Amino acid sequence: MNPTEKRYTLAILVNNHPGVLMRVVALFSRRGYNIDTLSVGETEDEAISRITIVVTGDRAIVEQIKKQVEKLYDVKRVYEMTRHASLQRELVMVKVATTAQNRSQVIELAQIFKAKISDVTETTLTLELTGSLDKLQSFLDLMRPFGIVELARTGITALERGSRPLSSIGYNEHE
Amino acid sequence: MNPTEKRYTLAILVNNHPGVLMRVVALFSRRGYNIDTLSVGETEDEAISRITIVVTGDRAIVEQIKKQVEKLYDVKRVYEMTRHASLQRELVMVKVATTAQNRSQVIELAQIFKAKISDVTETTLTLELTGSLDKLQSFLDLMRPFGIVELARTGITALERGSRPLSSIGYNEHE
Repeated sequence: MNPTEKRYTLAILVNNHPGVLMRVVALFSRRGYNIDTLSVGETEDEAISRITIVVTGDRAIVEQIKKQVEKLYDVKRVYEMTRHASLQRELVMVKVATTAQNRSQVIELAQIFKAKISDVTETTLTLELTGSLDKLQSFLDLMRPFGIVELARTGITALERGSRPLSSIGYNEHE
Repeated sequence: MNPTEKRYTLAILVNNHPGVLMRVVALFSRRGYNIDTLSVGETEDEAISRITIVVTGDRAIVEQIKKQVEKLYDVKRVYEMTRHASLQRELVMVKVATTAQNRSQVIELAQIFKAKISDVTETTLTLELTGSLDKLQSFLDLMRPFGIVELARTGITALERGSRPLSSIGYNEHE
């Protein structure tokens, strides 16, 4: 990342039609924008899906992306989820190498981070943890010396703080 | 879903190059395979990303998808994550409508499901919950009568049970 680059989180509301995910991903790929994480799922309205993309770039590029994505067929709106006004969370599953000697150390760290132990073998512990990118990074940094056997992450999803859904927020209010 | 259709979860290990996510999504779109959830993130090896896709179809279609995806450039391997041999989890964030009268009911249900309260306003509670598709479905069914204001989900991610990473598992062993 060069110094003017930051991570931006975009929530994209789209019609739940085949092909729209492809158009969104293709636009990022064609323009050379690098997607850090992507997740997609249903919303409170079954006709609408929500795509959350974390992208690294500078301010001007993110503004460009927002405009271009909003022009795509079946895309309803693109919202920028800022750090202070939204809750951003990811789920990580990690299989950590353990021995009889160090297992209790790993369990202790897991408890501090409120990670859930979901599987155990003689040589591994599998943990689930939810949090912000920073929290997950700190946890994985602590696990690395034990040995990370396998890692699966969902990518970030995000909701605005407060009582209203994104879809009720006007352009001028939000920006 | 017709009776021969089921949900299948595929873990796809790909080179971390731009364009590969697009090729995978484009293949599903072109062939008319319906993606239920998709998540993508880094793995224990920074050169490799892991895409997890849940797709609904019958056995023959899933076998076809596996073969076709494995032929794509930058795709290393496709693994089917079965229900009994893997841990499959999704993260859901949900903003539920509440009143002074029913807020404690919502909190009680959240506690039973071990959901985390991440934001509260006079008229809403925002909850985070991790689990299998079935568990999340049960929870959302319980929240619906209160009113779901907004919902964001990450899509499923999955790890095999046991001590070994997928990448060490041979074809014949796995199938």
